[in-house]
Amino acid sequence: MRWAVVMAGGNGTRFWPLSNPSHPKQFLTLLGAASPAKSCLDRLARVVDHSRILIVSSTCHRQALAQALPDFPEDQVLWEPAGRNTAPCIAWACETILARDPEALIGVFPSDHAISDVEAFAKSLERAFEAAPGRIVLFGIEPTRPETGYGYIEEGALLSENLHTVASFLEKPDLETAQSYLAAGRYLWNSGMFIFDARTMHGELTRHVPQIMDIIRGIVDHPETLDTEFKKLLSISIDYAVMEHTDCAVVMRASFPWDDLGTWDSVSRYFPNDKDENASHGDVTMLDCRKTFAYAGDARPIAVLGLENVIVVSTPDATLVMDASRAQDVRKIVEARQTSRDEKCPD
Amino acid sequence: MRWAVVMAGGNGTRFWPLSNPSHPKQFLTLLGAASPAKSCLDRLARVVDHSRILIVSSTCHRQALAQALPDFPEDQVLWEPAGRNTAPCIAWACETILARDPEALIGVFPSDHAISDVEAFAKSLERAFEAAPGRIVLFGIEPTRPETGYGYIEEGALLSENLHTVASFLEKPDLETAQSYLAAGRYLWNSGMFIFDARTMHGELTRHVPQIMDIIRGIVDHPETLDTEFKKLLSISIDYAVMEHTDCAVVMRASFPWDDLGTWDSVSRYFPNDKDENASHGDVTMLDCRKTFAYAGDARPIAVLGLENVIVVSTPDATLVMDASRAQDVRKIVEARQTSRDEKCPD
Repeated sequence: MRWAVVMAGGNGTRFWPLSNPSHPKQFLTLLGAASPAKSCLDRLARVVDHSRILIVSSTCHRQALAQALPDFPEDQVLWEPAGRNTAPCIAWACETILARDPEALIGVFPSDHAISDVEAFAKSLERAFEAAPGRIVLFGIEPTRPETGYGYIEEGALLSENLHTVASFLEKPDLETAQSYLAAGRYLWNSGMFIFDARTMHGELTRHVPQIMDIIRGIVDHPETLDTEFKKLLSISIDYAVMEHTDCAVVMRASFPWDDLGTWDSVSRYFPNDKDENASHGDVTMLDCRKTFAYAGDARPIAVLGLENVIVVSTPDATLVMDASRAQDVRKIVEARQTSRDEKCPD
Repeated sequence: MRWAVVMAGGNGTRFWPLSNPSHPKQFLTLLGAASPAKSCLDRLARVVDHSRILIVSSTCHRQALAQALPDFPEDQVLWEPAGRNTAPCIAWACETILARDPEALIGVFPSDHAISDVEAFAKSLERAFEAAPGRIVLFGIEPTRPETGYGYIEEGALLSENLHTVASFLEKPDLETAQSYLAAGRYLWNSGMFIFDARTMHGELTRHVPQIMDIIRGIVDHPETLDTEFKKLLSISIDYAVMEHTDCAVVMRASFPWDDLGTWDSVSRYFPNDKDENASHGDVTMLDCRKTFAYAGDARPIAVLGLENVIVVSTPDATLVMDASRAQDVRKIVEARQTSRDEKCPD
């Protein structure tokens, strides 16, 4: 049967100060009425039965998740007692689902992405499930701009319509390289969404990161050991642990508009621009600014004077001001503040 | 006898959002424990008797003044029902004092300047009062840097030690000109502080702006007409109205450290710098910044990432972010906001 796993354990550090471990990005209504996690569940429910959608989240998001998704069944949530990146997360979900359904096909989805065309997403997901038996299918997004903020997947041999082998995984490129990828046509954005045969993924995890699978098996057999055992897991992404080594990966072209909403810079694209390419939310006054984004997270106004390419975020908790090119580094601010203060979720 | 007049009617628009018409700069404890107005009164009390110090302020500062100067006698305050710049303010104080003391010598002082060496100030003030009979004595400050934010006074012929005729008044110069002034040695910062013979000033006001003196005389004779008559006054500075035309002005060199605290940029000089010339107040985290100043006006932290020459001010009322070179233009932000909102003191 078809299953879906929603990864909702991120701390949203790159969206500080609006998001924080108690209110991470996936549960905030940053754009529009629904949180990214709620939108994600609604999209999946078109293709996967409600009862077979699991969420993997962090124990420190219990309250935020309950507020954002009040109707979601508690027994369909796997609560991670610590953050250990995506490989342990997927391994745990995989082992849990296989114990109930040895024939399971599983889609794994980050909870915090923006996908506006839900029809196109549902169609792509149908096709991916159809292609999944014996495989790990990656959603590659057809690029629409020379984006330097994403990883890329290079398509290899054509297997069937829209389905290719993976020639290579490519890290975030510089602008020139990204432009060459866009022109070449065979490079797709790595969306971080996978649809796979549970047995296939389980076999690959067991082959490439056996130490993780040993611990996960112990946790599933003896749930009372979760708190102590989970913390022993290696923190590693599924890309490094499995995808870059496996022969089972294939890439499917998905043509729906997609954004990982990874940074304040990417979010600013969703707000209307004025003639100087400024954008804002809330009570904002700008004079002599260009390419500047100001987000007033409460009623207090923001004024910006004589700046270019700057992002300003003001919330009841804090104020953040940065060069827009540094949006990826907001986590460094959070880390710097954590060295002297306890704003971190226990880990 | 010696009198002092403290001008405390400014709205502090260049210190928005920390200052505003209800809490103007002169009554804030921006630097250290005492407000600029309180420090000004304490300095003057070394030379002038308490009972002969008047404050001219604005009716919309009643509450702020009462909080900042709870012991100051209400009957020594002249409440302006509208802002009309310094000439009407000085004319009113002059007429009021002359009615009680025809021999008065009066010093006029902006309430919002920083003068750290109170001993040196008191000595200079003594000498200025001694030189005042029949004259208008301007305090010219010996420049210590090629400051482009101040007006300058060019010294003319030497009259006695430290006392010269005024050769010319000079507007804020560009950097090259300011450097040449500093090198030449005969150019002094125009402090906006005057010590004069009340009859001399009264005569000059009557000669150069008779329409102002007519109205002021009416107000002093018929105080009940203040609200309606004051608003009829021309809004003009004492420099334009009198100083640039009179033959009675002389300039006295004053060597005490002085700052008009005119903008956020000037205030930032009073905070200790780190190795990258950044300065801050409150809970501030900076990464990869240079020449940047962040002022957290309440407990909420500020984080700044990857910026140079930027000023950030956060208060419970608003957040301001600007290029440091634009500090003079904060009033434009206030004006822009006033076009759509009522944040202005009634005028």
